[in-house]
Amino acid sequence: MYTPEAFKIDDEAMIHTFIKANSFATLIATIDNRLEVTHLPIDRLQDGRYYGHLSRDNPLSTIKRGAEVCVVFTGPHAYISPNMYASEFNVPTWNYSAVHCYGRVEYMEDEVEVWERFHGVVGRYEGEEGWQLPDEEKFQALSEYIRFFEFKIDTIEAKFKFNQNKSDEDIQSVIGSLRDVGNAKAADFMEQVTGKRHLRE
Amino acid sequence: MYTPEAFKIDDEAMIHTFIKANSFATLIATIDNRLEVTHLPIDRLQDGRYYGHLSRDNPLSTIKRGAEVCVVFTGPHAYISPNMYASEFNVPTWNYSAVHCYGRVEYMEDEVEVWERFHGVVGRYEGEEGWQLPDEEKFQALSEYIRFFEFKIDTIEAKFKFNQNKSDEDIQSVIGSLRDVGNAKAADFMEQVTGKRHLRE
Repeated sequence: MYTPEAFKIDDEAMIHTFIKANSFATLIATIDNRLEVTHLPIDRLQDGRYYGHLSRDNPLSTIKRGAEVCVVFTGPHAYISPNMYASEFNVPTWNYSAVHCYGRVEYMEDEVEVWERFHGVVGRYEGEEGWQLPDEEKFQALSEYIRFFEFKIDTIEAKFKFNQNKSDEDIQSVIGSLRDVGNAKAADFMEQVTGKRHLRE
Repeated sequence: MYTPEAFKIDDEAMIHTFIKANSFATLIATIDNRLEVTHLPIDRLQDGRYYGHLSRDNPLSTIKRGAEVCVVFTGPHAYISPNMYASEFNVPTWNYSAVHCYGRVEYMEDEVEVWERFHGVVGRYEGEEGWQLPDEEKFQALSEYIRFFEFKIDTIEAKFKFNQNKSDEDIQSVIGSLRDVGNAKAADFMEQVTGKRHLRE
């Protein structure tokens, strides 16, 4: 991903938090010389392992072991009008956040491990008070329809492009403008990325 | 994209509206045997033509004429807990909306046409009261840094997966639950997709 230095994110903890907050991912691979793209939740564990599952009817559930995949996580974004800056002579742009993870797929065959990961991801989305997976045997039939993957990620490219190359005054002005147009998600995220949260408090 | 019949969208007007509302797209191509992915606003005109532009430093601005690209537009989505349905015995899933456009890239070299498209897209994001492009000559330098594309789209795959295969009672229940968890965007979209808006009014 084309990423000027100002927008590059190397901090592992920031990347982890971002992926957890934006776990509904886009999975891309080339299958039979065609770009195949699908959308699925991907669970990143604290130790940096990644899990997901797909219907066996999905062409992407036939990715060859060892073939390159790219998993894309996207977060807050916003059109930025030149009017949003404090300074003059700016051009229209788009602020956005994306993490691209390159790696390969391993198919998970071990029932105990699959069940553990499945429990884990459902628990994370449901929370402690939420729906509980019923007894194992009721859901075993699922694995006839579903393939479970571990994504072995080799390279991560993270880009949070939120005017970090602009003056403090411009950054404050854009954050305020994003609140004015009702995009609180992008405003909050931009405050974190640019470290400007304290100025409001 | 794997799309069971119930979730397939063929209606050109719906697809057009979706792309206009979710114009910040993901562009994918294979360059030097590597999956390259970037994010950019793509402008779809009423006549179905698609335009975008990228920094000349972006690897995707070197896509070969005629090479396959996939442009992905994504919209509202939500984790769906089995607790959200009226009926029993459902499994956790993710509701989502995506349009995948396959085609090729044409580089735009004609200055007049580039300027017209650039005017068009800025006007659409800015609205009538917004920022105006300054005189042409001030911005001509931009084209030294930017490449302008038309995307020639051959195939569109559109999937709006919002429980269309469930009972009316389940659909109403999920829409209500999405409002309860504060995901009004997904609830509104699901109402449109399932044709259930009138039941609330």
